[in-house]
Amino acid sequence: MIPIRISDPDDPRIAEFVSLKEKDIAGRGDRFIAEGKVVLNALLSLGATERFSVEKLLVLENRLEGAGEIIDKLDAGIPVYVADRAVMDAITGFAMHRGVLALGRHAPPPDLAGFLDRLPGNALVVACCGISNHDNMGAIFRNAGVFGADGVVIDETCCAPLYRKAIRVSVGAALRVPFCKGGEASDILAALDKAGFATIALSPGGKTDIADIRPAGRTALVVGAEGPGLPADILARTTTVRIPQAPGMDSLNVATATGLALWQVARAMGRLS
Amino acid sequence: MIPIRISDPDDPRIAEFVSLKEKDIAGRGDRFIAEGKVVLNALLSLGATERFSVEKLLVLENRLEGAGEIIDKLDAGIPVYVADRAVMDAITGFAMHRGVLALGRHAPPPDLAGFLDRLPGNALVVACCGISNHDNMGAIFRNAGVFGADGVVIDETCCAPLYRKAIRVSVGAALRVPFCKGGEASDILAALDKAGFATIALSPGGKTDIADIRPAGRTALVVGAEGPGLPADILARTTTVRIPQAPGMDSLNVATATGLALWQVARAMGRLS
Repeated sequence: MIPIRISDPDDPRIAEFVSLKEKDIAGRGDRFIAEGKVVLNALLSLGATERFSVEKLLVLENRLEGAGEIIDKLDAGIPVYVADRAVMDAITGFAMHRGVLALGRHAPPPDLAGFLDRLPGNALVVACCGISNHDNMGAIFRNAGVFGADGVVIDETCCAPLYRKAIRVSVGAALRVPFCKGGEASDILAALDKAGFATIALSPGGKTDIADIRPAGRTALVVGAEGPGLPADILARTTTVRIPQAPGMDSLNVATATGLALWQVARAMGRLS
Repeated sequence: MIPIRISDPDDPRIAEFVSLKEKDIAGRGDRFIAEGKVVLNALLSLGATERFSVEKLLVLENRLEGAGEIIDKLDAGIPVYVADRAVMDAITGFAMHRGVLALGRHAPPPDLAGFLDRLPGNALVVACCGISNHDNMGAIFRNAGVFGADGVVIDETCCAPLYRKAIRVSVGAALRVPFCKGGEASDILAALDKAGFATIALSPGGKTDIADIRPAGRTALVVGAEGPGLPADILARTTTVRIPQAPGMDSLNVATATGLALWQVARAMGRLS
């Protein structure tokens, strides 16, 4: 593999990496950007799959040697571009500390009913409604990975788990934990019901202490946005659970609450060791 | 209160808000920057204390009306500066979405022995070693607040909890939960021992399942940095606990792990409802 030097930030061969922050916010169709060695290792260790492929790499000159392990894993023919600090910063539009960027392509996510049907009989999934912050989305995937959830379902108002920052915060779990995008929260609940999932919804006013939950069979943990929480019609159709906290204090971050609840549910399902 | 218009980004009256991101990284001695309505409400609802005072406000022109509730809480004589979007961005050096900034002054943190002595007989504290990331520090404070910890102790290698971003991520808890900076981790452990604290250290290889912990009396939860974790000599002097997770998966984020462990410890101490 001979790296190809880029000396012009407007070079069309690296156009997908231009103004990364703005474009990351705008979305990229069936492409995504993965950054940093940890995330790229996670991506490449998945191997060639129908879900993901790597199209090109852009590496900061002085990180080329350190990225050798990643480059060695690439399929033949995938171009590796290299740029010095000034060109790299001019391309991405900010000081890119991580120094290794990949452009990936992802398959369209599966349809909800098919996705749920293919999960095992004792599946545990997280259903996200209105999670619009990339840090929270990434952290929810990280927690889903750590506690062995079989999948994540997001509603139409969630941000995309494959945005650069969400992937980074997930430490690669957004690439590893299967996910599926449904429509409205109520459609997702209907699909979960139909696929035989018991639904447990996290809410500050939940009826059951999360520590007392005894899940059996297919289980979905439903979580909503930090401020408004889950809508009343969703709560009315689920088993609502709360996380006891110190009296009069503010609420937990949604990703932390999801991690804590997932831990309790996965534990009660006998999935942890 | 009549807001004072700033039309020159170099105006010395707002010099502390210039190039916020760089200066936030560099630190500010006994000053700190609080941003956004939620954090400013938390700060001002503390009232005048020996720990904190507010010195000035800088508000984006079109947020002045929305910030009325905050401005009303200010002591007389505290200046409120107002700037339009272009001047505000030129001052701070980036697109400031939150639109309300305060410069605060904080008292020097107390000495460790005195800090621990003043805590109650059944105190619960978090001791942080090597937490160098502002998001994690802020999130640890948020969790400490939610689960009612009486204080946080940080070692000399931790980042400052009063950096702008740490305060923001803490949703103000970094201003509300008392904290104290000790020296090396081993010095902190010695001080905790001397003050009668049982020490519980979180570690992936911990001997006891966190759910089985039965704390009694003064308790300190000791947490280390995400990669290296706590040093062996610290683990050897504490009760080590682990959070069971799915086999073969990556590790939890340190703030999430701290939140989860705090929840278990606070719960076992009968502090939650």
